[in-house]
Amino acid sequence: MLTLATIREAHARIRDSIVRTPVLSNDSLDADAHASLFFKCESFQKIGAFKARGATNAVFLLSDEEARNGVVTHSSGNHAAAVARAAKLRGIPAYVVMPHTVPQAKLQNVRNLGARIELCEPTLAAREAAAQRVIAETGATLVHPFNDYRVMAGQGTATLELLEEQPDLDLILCPIGGGGLISGTAVAAKGLKPGIQIIGVEPAGADDAYRSFKSGAIVPVTPANTIADGLRGTLLDKTFGVIRENVDDVVTVSETAIVQAMRSIWETLKIVVEPSAAVSYAAIVEKKVDVTGRRVGLIVTGGNLDLDSLPWTSAEVL
Amino acid sequence: MLTLATIREAHARIRDSIVRTPVLSNDSLDADAHASLFFKCESFQKIGAFKARGATNAVFLLSDEEARNGVVTHSSGNHAAAVARAAKLRGIPAYVVMPHTVPQAKLQNVRNLGARIELCEPTLAAREAAAQRVIAETGATLVHPFNDYRVMAGQGTATLELLEEQPDLDLILCPIGGGGLISGTAVAAKGLKPGIQIIGVEPAGADDAYRSFKSGAIVPVTPANTIADGLRGTLLDKTFGVIRENVDDVVTVSETAIVQAMRSIWETLKIVVEPSAAVSYAAIVEKKVDVTGRRVGLIVTGGNLDLDSLPWTSAEVL
Repeated sequence: MLTLATIREAHARIRDSIVRTPVLSNDSLDADAHASLFFKCESFQKIGAFKARGATNAVFLLSDEEARNGVVTHSSGNHAAAVARAAKLRGIPAYVVMPHTVPQAKLQNVRNLGARIELCEPTLAAREAAAQRVIAETGATLVHPFNDYRVMAGQGTATLELLEEQPDLDLILCPIGGGGLISGTAVAAKGLKPGIQIIGVEPAGADDAYRSFKSGAIVPVTPANTIADGLRGTLLDKTFGVIRENVDDVVTVSETAIVQAMRSIWETLKIVVEPSAAVSYAAIVEKKVDVTGRRVGLIVTGGNLDLDSLPWTSAEVL
Repeated sequence: MLTLATIREAHARIRDSIVRTPVLSNDSLDADAHASLFFKCESFQKIGAFKARGATNAVFLLSDEEARNGVVTHSSGNHAAAVARAAKLRGIPAYVVMPHTVPQAKLQNVRNLGARIELCEPTLAAREAAAQRVIAETGATLVHPFNDYRVMAGQGTATLELLEEQPDLDLILCPIGGGGLISGTAVAAKGLKPGIQIIGVEPAGADDAYRSFKSGAIVPVTPANTIADGLRGTLLDKTFGVIRENVDDVVTVSETAIVQAMRSIWETLKIVVEPSAAVSYAAIVEKKVDVTGRRVGLIVTGGNLDLDSLPWTSAEVL
């Protein structure tokens, strides 16, 4: 179950192990939007992304008996680093299944956090099979990147902090990948402030959540085509259930708007954010949500990306 | 005169018109340096640089009679924007002399802040002549970018905030261009904490302050050759006098170290900083200062740069 209470408990559990990230505002972005914008900067979170919250909560919640055998996950991104770090904090083994095609830098980063890497073929089936093999061999517990109420509760803690600092928000815009972050966000926000509006934002090139939300049933997975690589995940049963109950709307944004929003955030807020982190602001840039005169929270999800290939230096996107 | 008292008065004067910028730390940068590093992030300051502090103090200090005729400066960088903004806050005219070669974006930025632009030939002589002409015609007061105790006092306010937050620093590293920032930094820090060490950092390709400091006399200006365009200024009488009295040492850093430091700051602290802002950390990267086991403050001066031409995408520097 995911409730305001479980999110508050998660916050008490992980608070000393994560960063209380800053909330940034900017006069010029406010003037452009005719609104008051509050950016909750999870790019400053441990491991550079909000994923530290959910993974830490899930790992800290294990019983000592479960924990002894360690944790396993399959991910090549921020969740892998988050699980590795949380396991290290608890002093237990972490096994991370990664496709052998993963960039060396990401692999080394997770290894530096003390995880044991299991390489596999770059397919979902191979990843799941490898994770099952690890579980069979070690008794490790799977920490899913999003379809897990403990993980969702951890992700929701960012919104507790945001609303503590800015209690009068009218609306929160939140990216959707697999839906773990927006699930925690929506339940935390509606629990604290029933009248608040929660809108999910998805790249048009990976719009499974949009289509699932509008149709009322999880749509089949289609190949994602977006620069926002953190948002290529698709909803699963638990996140879809929470989103249907608690999210007011889902909108999509174009690749051009994502890149433009990302660049505006870099230039104006002076922070490094990854493409996935810019989609909330992209919804404002592209006027997909009417924010006029409103007080709007935006979850900025992370700041991990390759500085050698920035989207505005490649002609293909713009 | 520049004293702890004038810096404190400056802070009271400008506090409501500037940003109290955050101080960031990072475990991984600390581990690399074997030290505790505290980055005072003036990249988050109004107009994106510490220059907002000094210009605001100088403009607010004018008598009503002086203020009526406005202020003038010659600069194509952050100081121009800072003077324009301060004049706008006070409701007085600002005249900014800029070379006609200045990029349109910078010109438009200053114009958007309400300043009147006077274009001139791109030489120091032409800039000074144009400023003198404005003064003769309008009675405006010159706000020099650094050789002015009111400006230096304003720049020193960043260090009041830094030491309020981190009172136990052993050392502060500060970039040197014309010397306004380090003058305020050193007087504020030594006033609060006589035992603290202040070390200035300069690009080796614009090392006039290093040579002046070591020789005891202002060295003649030579053409600067560095990516750190904010540090191409040279010391003048007032800044040189304060630096001789209050700064413990000056070191130089290579272009490679500046770019490497800038990239580390972007990748690890997740903030956008300009090359000039990275030289303090470059001194640690290049081991020009022994920081082992020490608590070190670093002034990160600004975050304004062209995202289309980042140094690590050009082969010439690395």
